[in-house]
Amino acid sequence: MTVRLGVIGGDGIGPEVVAEARKVLDVVLPDVAATEYDLGAARYHRTGEVLPDEVLEQLAGEDVLLLGAVGDPSVPSGVLERGLLLKLRFAFDHYVNLRPSRLWAGTTSPLAGVAPGDIDLVVVREGTEGLYCGAGGSVRKGTPAEVATEESLNTRYGAERAVRDAFERAMRRPRRKVTLVHKNNVLVNAGDLWARTFAEVATEYPDVQTEYQHVDAAAMFLVTDPQRYDVIVTDNLFGDILTDLAAAVTGGIGLAASGNINPTRAYPSMFEPVHGSAPDIAGQGVADPAAAILSTALLLDHLDRPAEARRVEEAVGAEVAKRVPGEKLRTAEVGDAIATALAG
Amino acid sequence: MTVRLGVIGGDGIGPEVVAEARKVLDVVLPDVAATEYDLGAARYHRTGEVLPDEVLEQLAGEDVLLLGAVGDPSVPSGVLERGLLLKLRFAFDHYVNLRPSRLWAGTTSPLAGVAPGDIDLVVVREGTEGLYCGAGGSVRKGTPAEVATEESLNTRYGAERAVRDAFERAMRRPRRKVTLVHKNNVLVNAGDLWARTFAEVATEYPDVQTEYQHVDAAAMFLVTDPQRYDVIVTDNLFGDILTDLAAAVTGGIGLAASGNINPTRAYPSMFEPVHGSAPDIAGQGVADPAAAILSTALLLDHLDRPAEARRVEEAVGAEVAKRVPGEKLRTAEVGDAIATALAG
Ligand SMILES: CC(C)[C@H](C(=O)O)[C@@H](O)C(=O)O
Ligand SMILES: CC(C)[C@H](C(=O)O)[C@@H](O)C(=O)O
Repeated sequence: MTVRLGVIGGDGIGPEVVAEARKVLDVVLPDVAATEYDLGAARYHRTGEVLPDEVLEQLAGEDVLLLGAVGDPSVPSGVLERGLLLKLRFAFDHYVNLRPSRLWAGTTSPLAGVAPGDIDLVVVREGTEGLYCGAGGSVRKGTPAEVATEESLNTRYGAERAVRDAFERAMRRPRRKVTLVHKNNVLVNAGDLWARTFAEVATEYPDVQTEYQHVDAAAMFLVTDPQRYDVIVTDNLFGDILTDLAAAVTGGIGLAASGNINPTRAYPSMFEPVHGSAPDIAGQGVADPAAAILSTALLLDHLDRPAEARRVEEAVGAEVAKRVPGEKLRTAEVGDAIATALAG
Repeated sequence: MTVRLGVIGGDGIGPEVVAEARKVLDVVLPDVAATEYDLGAARYHRTGEVLPDEVLEQLAGEDVLLLGAVGDPSVPSGVLERGLLLKLRFAFDHYVNLRPSRLWAGTTSPLAGVAPGDIDLVVVREGTEGLYCGAGGSVRKGTPAEVATEESLNTRYGAERAVRDAFERAMRRPRRKVTLVHKNNVLVNAGDLWARTFAEVATEYPDVQTEYQHVDAAAMFLVTDPQRYDVIVTDNLFGDILTDLAAAVTGGIGLAASGNINPTRAYPSMFEPVHGSAPDIAGQGVADPAAAILSTALLLDHLDRPAEARRVEEAVGAEVAKRVPGEKLRTAEVGDAIATALAG
């Protein structure tokens, strides 16, 4: 069956790394009908539009989406992020923002005394609620009396489906442990909602070990004892911070993949590297495409092709393990090497 | 002139570490009239009260406050934290939550390749706004239709005084650099307020180098490149997370001091270790009092006694440098050693 793939290269290094991800997909998933979408800063400057309704509708008809990166210094902060990236996450109800972190062989953690294999965690970041809703406003902007608000919206419906997904994932992993991260000593309304939901769902999974941590403590433990984590479930903003931190302790954002997943399949899920558009190195062919390629492994998992997903991960792992520290990589060479290894 | 010192031992290890901090203060600040306040879980269980108005009024009459820790598993999460700790921070308008992080000789960072002296940063965490205001609520609690909100309130007034304090501090430090941390690509209202305020205040300090980072990027850089930071200014919640993280990369929460400061002196400022009440080790005399003692150095700075403040820091530094890795410390012995060194 042909897989309809929507490709959004986006800004900066986005198109470069997505090109390599597609080389890899071409090998392991030959029957693909890909459509490239011209979205991002260039389109915004040309047309003033970020994501027209017709394009959103067309994207909704794809099976899966692959996204490079969004954001450019020439566009005011937030315009593309909210108008394109977050718009897609919300419109397509991507309630599981899945972000695995693993210390790969060949990479060095900035932490002393951790070895490849020591860290293997996955964050289920809720993707459709919290402070990302865009609820908030300003009065008396630009005056000394300015007030600005941001509102975090949280529902039992939203927390429960994310929590349940985390428990389901934990059941499929050897350690079977889920850590809820929130800040329920300060954010008592949302924190209590998450904690009660977590406790109730946990009763359905007696084989899963559970713990709760405040977000400040979790940030600390990700540095002092990242080995303790298996599955972390948390809200949208805490997940944003903790997944960058988890990427940092596992050797950097260059290997951090993510999936914006709608497990019900009512809408296409979207896969993207965690890194941004990195305008400073864009166009030079030196961006690491590993995170984009690893994101295709998550895409393959979502398409129920775990064998292909594991093959992609292994090929990336083998390529990374061969890297010579300090040697500059070339985006296309990395993609070619991985695609060739998979084809061979 | 006699300094009126209000002492709130609080919960768990709080009273133990505060006792050692007082030993040190007795040496370097002899003319103190100290009043102990019985606040925390024990009082709550005995009387049902967290912080009665009369006590708050009495505390307002002190010059400075020393606090141990607040929070106990026997009290629902948030009750003491919000009713006592945050209540004091807000009632006494502690808008500068000052949290220095330094890698001391004798401590080991969990990061590879950083040496004592490499990391020396201070976070100015805004202390009276943001998501800590207690604005928010729930509807249909306990039902599948539950909705919970948390609101972040931000004002030009509040952001500006925190930002200004950060620039003033930077001017007194050799590197003169301030990093604003926010998430202005998502929290566009509050983020824009902070960014505009920061840019405007910066024009008054042409000698100070500035940069902006999203909170997720800052979390990453605190692990991969903590040396880059001098002064960080950020909002209440981001400051909470980043200061625990900064403590972790500089050898742990055992040395993290903080001041809840009202620079106008309209109300007493309050000094406390960043660590919590650690109920698991309470009463055993094994808690590290270093963070509480270092908090008295911040207290001395606030009382315009920088010479005494530096002496306390040096004495703590010398004691820490002498520690034998793996050897269990005794709370009272650490306090005695530091107090004796200072008296000698
Ligand atoms: C670009 C930004 C809106 C986004 C987020 O905050 O979710 C990014 O940081 C991420 O983690 O995917
Ligand atoms: C106990 C809690 C309310 C507090 C906070 O979140 O500010 C603590 O984590 C801190 O950093 O002082």
